[in-house]
Amino acid sequence: MGVCIPGFVAAGARRGRYGVAVVFSEKVCECAGVFTKNSVKAAPVKYTKRRVKNGFHAIVANSGNANCCIPEAAEDAKSMADSAAKALGVSACNVAVSSTGIIGRRMDVAEVNKAAADAAKNLRCSADASLEAAKAIMTTDSVPKMYSAESGDLMVGGICKGAGMIAPNMATMLCFLTTNADFSQKKLQDVLSFAVEDSFNMVSVEGDMSTNDTVLLMSSRTTKCKIAEFKKLLAHVCAELAKKIAEDGEGATKFMEVHVKGAPSLKDARKAVKAITDSPLVKTAIYGENPNWGRVVACAGSVVRVEEEMTTVAFESGKDSATVYERGNALGLEKAKKILKNREVRIVLDLGRGRHNATGWGCDMSPEYVNINAGYN
Amino acid sequence: MGVCIPGFVAAGARRGRYGVAVVFSEKVCECAGVFTKNSVKAAPVKYTKRRVKNGFHAIVANSGNANCCIPEAAEDAKSMADSAAKALGVSACNVAVSSTGIIGRRMDVAEVNKAAADAAKNLRCSADASLEAAKAIMTTDSVPKMYSAESGDLMVGGICKGAGMIAPNMATMLCFLTTNADFSQKKLQDVLSFAVEDSFNMVSVEGDMSTNDTVLLMSSRTTKCKIAEFKKLLAHVCAELAKKIAEDGEGATKFMEVHVKGAPSLKDARKAVKAITDSPLVKTAIYGENPNWGRVVACAGSVVRVEEEMTTVAFESGKDSATVYERGNALGLEKAKKILKNREVRIVLDLGRGRHNATGWGCDMSPEYVNINAGYN
Repeated sequence: MGVCIPGFVAAGARRGRYGVAVVFSEKVCECAGVFTKNSVKAAPVKYTKRRVKNGFHAIVANSGNANCCIPEAAEDAKSMADSAAKALGVSACNVAVSSTGIIGRRMDVAEVNKAAADAAKNLRCSADASLEAAKAIMTTDSVPKMYSAESGDLMVGGICKGAGMIAPNMATMLCFLTTNADFSQKKLQDVLSFAVEDSFNMVSVEGDMSTNDTVLLMSSRTTKCKIAEFKKLLAHVCAELAKKIAEDGEGATKFMEVHVKGAPSLKDARKAVKAITDSPLVKTAIYGENPNWGRVVACAGSVVRVEEEMTTVAFESGKDSATVYERGNALGLEKAKKILKNREVRIVLDLGRGRHNATGWGCDMSPEYVNINAGYN
Repeated sequence: MGVCIPGFVAAGARRGRYGVAVVFSEKVCECAGVFTKNSVKAAPVKYTKRRVKNGFHAIVANSGNANCCIPEAAEDAKSMADSAAKALGVSACNVAVSSTGIIGRRMDVAEVNKAAADAAKNLRCSADASLEAAKAIMTTDSVPKMYSAESGDLMVGGICKGAGMIAPNMATMLCFLTTNADFSQKKLQDVLSFAVEDSFNMVSVEGDMSTNDTVLLMSSRTTKCKIAEFKKLLAHVCAELAKKIAEDGEGATKFMEVHVKGAPSLKDARKAVKAITDSPLVKTAIYGENPNWGRVVACAGSVVRVEEEMTTVAFESGKDSATVYERGNALGLEKAKKILKNREVRIVLDLGRGRHNATGWGCDMSPEYVNINAGYN
């Protein structure tokens, strides 16, 4: 289903090096957005951020070019919105635009607009249409990413892209979400911001922050529900999509979940999770199936207070768990080495200093990661 | 000459997996130290930090084991100091200890002490002795590192080790410096802290911070000079040693200098330098000889304010310079591509927003980096 929950149609099209996804609603939707915190923002981010409170009929997103750091960027972002608005028969002020790809090169906006027009003619409400849209925004992604969930009548669906350049504060990560939850713009924004904090912001493939990161939520407002129910469902969908991004890290051979518990504050727990998921030394150790808890402890210690005699580290996979460091004592590594042979592994760090927990996701770092990023142009 | 400026003798010895370096002065020296900011500190760091104001006769440093995160660490650090003090005929409270290597495994302290005793029998004042000491503390380093400089009668010399796990706040980096500058402990400490900030703290091989980082300065106090002269000479020696560390990054194929100018504050300039030298995306681009200024700008923008129309990026090597992005405009890349074929390259980012500058050093990231760190045990 992805973004194609009832009331929403989607399509994807491709022209040359550009893929374009369109998500559309006949009714103008209440919208919320979370955007990159990088001080260098791509033109489509500025364009869309400024208009999010208007509400949108459509999101038009292209891959192949970030439309960033060129003098014509603002003009090209506007052209994308104007052209799509015309094709869809709506006002340009109700069209969101989004881009991903290389920075600093001008895109062929005419080609992008043609692809958007192709997609606009092919809009439909189906899982297949959502998948087509998810494929259109892929860059170095190896698989399209979509997910949806429901709770009674309440529905949340989404597509996203992102593989390399994913960082603690989200990076070249695009996510488009749809829902029928009937809440005001302000409430939608609050719930979205909260969900992003515990999902996309906890994903790391390396450590940079992109100029184009965007999470957009469109709501048709057709279903009444409790806010707690909506919060839970949106957080769930965001977490599942974030995990798909981590699993698809460039050159990744393993998916890594990092769980920090026993922190004195949520902030400390999140900081430790991010430091571990970002660390090239932890990531290469996981690639090497090497239960190097010393790197995990040193890494956490570089951002939060770690007391050796309170600290415990375990490596896990599925239901298997091997504690390798327990309150200051190194234990045997044999079981942990076996566990790290799995494709999905979990690092559990207990700081023993409080009752706050956080979870994040990442992947290992392989020689292939370097090769992909050395060549990308 | 390295650490063996007049008044100082040195030696290195090896037993099994352990290398031990000894630097010694007949006269007890006034000392200063800068230590890791990681909240997890190895036992030798705690031991030495606590005694730095006593002054030291000797530094005893081992490779092969970090003596960190094990219950017996404090006891083993003390044993190293006691045993070396006996061999050297000085008081244990005037012996500094330092360790580098794997975390969380107990070292064979008897073996380390035997190697220290071997070195103590072989102390001499020569470049060869300094080199032997520098070799003894190598871990994944591919070359021993030493440097010295003089200005009239004033002398500063040093040895250091460090390759992987080098980060903005120095990591598994050991540096032992000697001087004859006649200043009080407090002044020596001030000058050392300042020099470290602009040298070792501006080196990055990836982005982690070790539990064992140590910079120690011993002064024989035999030469009077102006503090400005000493400041300059010490900063120079530290910068040259820091560059040797960056050049020897694990798996590095290129040496990268990063110069940020036009920053509104020194803090911003340093932050931008560190973000760029740490970025896996910039490092892999340099490995691929790919003048991807977009990554440089995005990376700086993630930590400081970047205004596109004020910003200029150039890639340089020796006297060749190619501006690739000039006040918001992308320029041709042909010349920059040629420049990046060199082994030593410089990234110059002008933020156009002030008059503060900073320089840092790093290296590219190669597939070999991943292989080294996947296997290290």
